[in-house]
Amino acid sequence: MFTAATFAELTALLGPERVRADADTLSLYARDETPRSCTPQAVLFPRSHEEVVAIVQRANAHDFPLVARGAGSGNVGGAMPVPGGVVLSFECMNAILEFDAGNRLVVVQPGVVTDDIDRLARGAGLMYAPDPGSGAYSRIGGNLATNAAGPRCVKYGATRDHVLGLRAVSGDGRELRLGSRTSKYATAYDLARLLVGSEGTLALITEATLRLIPAPETVATLRVCYASNAGACAAVRRVMQQPVVPSALEFMDRRAIDVLTLYGGEQVVNAGLPAGTQAVLMVEADGARDDVPRQIAALEKVLVGEGMLEILAGFTAADIARLWAARKSLSMAVKQIAPLKINEDVVVPISQLASLVQAIDSLGHAHAVPIVSFGHAGNGNLHVNIMVHPDDAAEIERARACHDALVETVLALGGSLSGEHGIGSEKRRYVAREIDAGTLAMLHDVKRLFDPMGILNPGKKLPD
Amino acid sequence: MFTAATFAELTALLGPERVRADADTLSLYARDETPRSCTPQAVLFPRSHEEVVAIVQRANAHDFPLVARGAGSGNVGGAMPVPGGVVLSFECMNAILEFDAGNRLVVVQPGVVTDDIDRLARGAGLMYAPDPGSGAYSRIGGNLATNAAGPRCVKYGATRDHVLGLRAVSGDGRELRLGSRTSKYATAYDLARLLVGSEGTLALITEATLRLIPAPETVATLRVCYASNAGACAAVRRVMQQPVVPSALEFMDRRAIDVLTLYGGEQVVNAGLPAGTQAVLMVEADGARDDVPRQIAALEKVLVGEGMLEILAGFTAADIARLWAARKSLSMAVKQIAPLKINEDVVVPISQLASLVQAIDSLGHAHAVPIVSFGHAGNGNLHVNIMVHPDDAAEIERARACHDALVETVLALGGSLSGEHGIGSEKRRYVAREIDAGTLAMLHDVKRLFDPMGILNPGKKLPD
Repeated sequence: MFTAATFAELTALLGPERVRADADTLSLYARDETPRSCTPQAVLFPRSHEEVVAIVQRANAHDFPLVARGAGSGNVGGAMPVPGGVVLSFECMNAILEFDAGNRLVVVQPGVVTDDIDRLARGAGLMYAPDPGSGAYSRIGGNLATNAAGPRCVKYGATRDHVLGLRAVSGDGRELRLGSRTSKYATAYDLARLLVGSEGTLALITEATLRLIPAPETVATLRVCYASNAGACAAVRRVMQQPVVPSALEFMDRRAIDVLTLYGGEQVVNAGLPAGTQAVLMVEADGARDDVPRQIAALEKVLVGEGMLEILAGFTAADIARLWAARKSLSMAVKQIAPLKINEDVVVPISQLASLVQAIDSLGHAHAVPIVSFGHAGNGNLHVNIMVHPDDAAEIERARACHDALVETVLALGGSLSGEHGIGSEKRRYVAREIDAGTLAMLHDVKRLFDPMGILNPGKKLPD
Repeated sequence: MFTAATFAELTALLGPERVRADADTLSLYARDETPRSCTPQAVLFPRSHEEVVAIVQRANAHDFPLVARGAGSGNVGGAMPVPGGVVLSFECMNAILEFDAGNRLVVVQPGVVTDDIDRLARGAGLMYAPDPGSGAYSRIGGNLATNAAGPRCVKYGATRDHVLGLRAVSGDGRELRLGSRTSKYATAYDLARLLVGSEGTLALITEATLRLIPAPETVATLRVCYASNAGACAAVRRVMQQPVVPSALEFMDRRAIDVLTLYGGEQVVNAGLPAGTQAVLMVEADGARDDVPRQIAALEKVLVGEGMLEILAGFTAADIARLWAARKSLSMAVKQIAPLKINEDVVVPISQLASLVQAIDSLGHAHAVPIVSFGHAGNGNLHVNIMVHPDDAAEIERARACHDALVETVLALGGSLSGEHGIGSEKRRYVAREIDAGTLAMLHDVKRLFDPMGILNPGKKLPD
């Protein structure tokens, strides 16, 4: 239990500036992007691996929960405090420890902002490939916790695919050095990649060695408008059945276009979607300057098809920004429909994307709730937003039923609950529908091995 | 313990044809590519996941070791039987269960031959990227066990990077379904990729869902001869510091060229290495027909440098085969120097490759043993072969001391014991030099969790 004595002990460890329990701080750290919140007992700001070890030891000794936090930009409650728990913020562990361009790697602390890694790499002609939508403010520790991805994932893979090694502290306070600095490794069990995506429930990552890859010389963008969801989904399948792998293949559905038309404002008017647009694909190709036009031509060829209304290409930064304007204003516009969104992050095999989109449409009708869908179509990964008014109990009820039916649909299509956001607190109730009891028992055993006292982010990731 | 009663029980389970203990079979399955051998008690040939579950249950009940085996083409004793143990051969579980070109995946049993997966994929314009040298006969189960790689790994990653999901049986007989059929996944802990590279010590993989990628339209090859190891290593660094990632970047050192000249025979004479050649790089580029010439030109530009004697390009199948002739005859030629090779598979950061190659040269001199090195230079991964006569005790002694010093060198250079072969029985004694005691203890705990009775491949992968 976290008591005044524990507070004093932690203050002695970190100093009063880095153990906070004032009302403002507690309120600020009470939530992530999930609508719910929970006030923590205190917020800790360690500065070193050694301090993290000491904190984990105290948490075991006094039996209080620790919830690791980067920027708090997660969507599923992964960084939301738990009752009686303490938040461990990695904001003060934000150093880039080493940038080794010759070996194409960077060693970072967990509090480094994701896009800063990419920015640094670009200076040497390299890039950090994962590009979550929150990259401008999310911390790499959160990206590692959730196995974050983003549009470029369709070509380059998610966070896990770019991890070479980790330093970490397990739930029972053991110090781990995992993986290597080499691009190939077959020596030990791959615990580094096991920790990636474990949402702070097994260990706290204090240092990560990340792989960088050559930055493409140039990028070009296509915006393609379709008269129906079905037309756009058919085009996605055609793209993913020819050899040019796009560096982004993003989808906005009919409802998303409606929202843009109603609430998108000037930006969308200026972007000029053609009349009758019911779905939009944003497609990118990257690579050598001499090769991108060939890729774009190949992509255009398969994007043209039934129901296509318009295809526009952008090869300059200004043109590309103009083409993305509608898509970029979507998140803000969505908030205008209803104050609360139930945010899903389901993923299905590409061949089932059209069925999923169609089912979402039907579910919205059947349950009388507006659903806006958009996302990373090239991975079959859709962000499905069920929009509700939190004070309308009947609507909330309908939304929950709809959410439930959506999960059933996704699993029936051979899909999975989460493509990139993780499970957190908000989707735990669905996990046992996807994963069989025997496998779940093993997942629980893994949790117990790393964190026998259950102090790391309890009530997250795994169902009870 | 494995007794006559156990034999009878297993025979009742699998039928007499698939439980073998005749001298010929036992002798055939007593070794992998490691020089040592150990006669098993029996060899089992299960045909289904359910039979594997039943066998693992028997092994737990009667406490006898199980050693999984694919083709037995491993180099470190991973498939070598252990005293009192039984070999579980996956040769009869060799079905391709599903080929889903639209979702770019294949579902296979562990006994499928690696290259057969690639061959199948090619028919639909796809490829299975990992290409271990043994791919013509190795089984995918063995590839999964070791996280096998090959020349293409420098561009496409190793086996682990191409696994979407697994079905497996843990050491305590639990049935696991891990991962998904989708190209993105953030739902459960990633136990699938943990099992990859665990060398049959945690679980037996009974089914794998593997990712396929678009096959390149064409491939072109460069053979580049240098007057010194240092010249070739400098060129490797230059290649890995410009943006075109080659689809192979293979190295043969001075000793390898000597061996070829002495024992390579007609093939090498016809291949015509220029006089003074002391090191050779084989470099490939793949991709679209219109783009490969650009890649080759970029690679040629950086391959030219100090000590380069000749650069030849091949764009047709015949020319490519001619350029590879010397490299392909190397493995056979090496066997002529001495009957036994102590085969290392070390890996270092690219920036340290030149230092490693130089150190190997010095070590060979210092310990008076011939060492032939070649391998996947683009990953910093070298196969270092210390050649010895097994009946020359003094030479064996020198070779062991040399091996020991090599490991120290690799670790001092920030490298790792194994890039792609794994640890097996043969390199266990070095693991504790690379991995700290706390991390090792956690690796042992993971082993105990999956295999509490220690029946799966005991005495492999982890040190005692």
